[in-house]
Amino acid sequence: MLPIVSIVGASDSGKTTFLEKLIPELTARGYRVGAVKHDAHGFEIDREGKDTWRLKRAGAVVTAISSKDQFASIRQTDEEMSLEEIAARFFWTEDILITEGFKRERFPKIEIFRSTREPKPICGQGDNLIAIVSDDAVDTQVPKFSFAEWRGVADFIENRYLKGKKKRKILVQLDGKQMPMNDFVEDFVVGAIKGMLSSLRGYGKPRIISIHVRLGEDD
Amino acid sequence: MLPIVSIVGASDSGKTTFLEKLIPELTARGYRVGAVKHDAHGFEIDREGKDTWRLKRAGAVVTAISSKDQFASIRQTDEEMSLEEIAARFFWTEDILITEGFKRERFPKIEIFRSTREPKPICGQGDNLIAIVSDDAVDTQVPKFSFAEWRGVADFIENRYLKGKKKRKILVQLDGKQMPMNDFVEDFVVGAIKGMLSSLRGYGKPRIISIHVRLGEDD
Repeated sequence: MLPIVSIVGASDSGKTTFLEKLIPELTARGYRVGAVKHDAHGFEIDREGKDTWRLKRAGAVVTAISSKDQFASIRQTDEEMSLEEIAARFFWTEDILITEGFKRERFPKIEIFRSTREPKPICGQGDNLIAIVSDDAVDTQVPKFSFAEWRGVADFIENRYLKGKKKRKILVQLDGKQMPMNDFVEDFVVGAIKGMLSSLRGYGKPRIISIHVRLGEDD
Repeated sequence: MLPIVSIVGASDSGKTTFLEKLIPELTARGYRVGAVKHDAHGFEIDREGKDTWRLKRAGAVVTAISSKDQFASIRQTDEEMSLEEIAARFFWTEDILITEGFKRERFPKIEIFRSTREPKPICGQGDNLIAIVSDDAVDTQVPKFSFAEWRGVADFIENRYLKGKKKRKILVQLDGKQMPMNDFVEDFVVGAIKGMLSSLRGYGKPRIISIHVRLGEDD
């Protein structure tokens, strides 16, 4: 799976504003960045009266709109998807996923901290905090950056999660959850799938193979 | 792949209005309906100044927002995705995909026709027209329904594409394009993948297996 780093912090601490510096910096370094925001209150992304809004209201479980340069989709869900599922389903071709929020997930976090918002950082022990961005004095064990040091944060993320990492060749999900595999098993499964499919008509020389299998009760 | 039916017609012929009848009817019959609209002019789905809009403007290739009951994503694309790719990537768990527009794709089409808009239907030979919805006299070889007969259109779609169809157990895509497989090969590939994965730790009893393989130049 692609690396995931979460930018967390109290509301109005400046998460989006910091991301507006960090994302262009990572993009300028040649990485394809995906971004996902956690919304606790429910959101309305399409506008009342628009066709997508009407199709959604008519009961479509997934509503999408496609044009030459953009594709957007809105999915009704029974429960919030996990970051792992979001990453695998929607960010497969990106190099890194930066999230705004998702404090409760287990992924590494950078907290944006302003003492005018909260007396102390919201991340504690066990929150997988890897850095703090703040212009205030903070008592912390993790690296600290000022708001002006977004390039330093980009270096930090790049060194830790992007540079020299072996890109996983295969992602196997069982009901949306990643199946763990060591390098040996990974190579074996990739080889077996390639071997099987390449003997079939119409294989060619693909760069990406996607397989979805639906199993019934009796399988 | 799930069945795809396209609702096409001149602009302002009433496609969305008809879909507002058809989608609830199919939903009421127990089907999970996905809907995708083709937009020729480019669209703006999120609102200026909103966080998702800011993250997208910052350069994120994919921007998403997640809450308890909805998930939305916006992807920047170099070229318009094919309906086949859209269906496979975003509508895997739905029973049917109804599109608004996409006349140029090869999928079966139902044309919404109003003689006040166009002198004759926009679909001609080779357009895979399967029905017409109109209150005007139309010279056509395909079944014709009035605007009030959305239940009849739902019957027509249900009988033709939904009832008693064997659900495909596996979808294999090479670079986003479906690899054709007959039933024998399908069963063989499903069995081989299940056999291979079930011998690994952590397999359990999944309902859906998804596999993504990224191949390099030297593979």
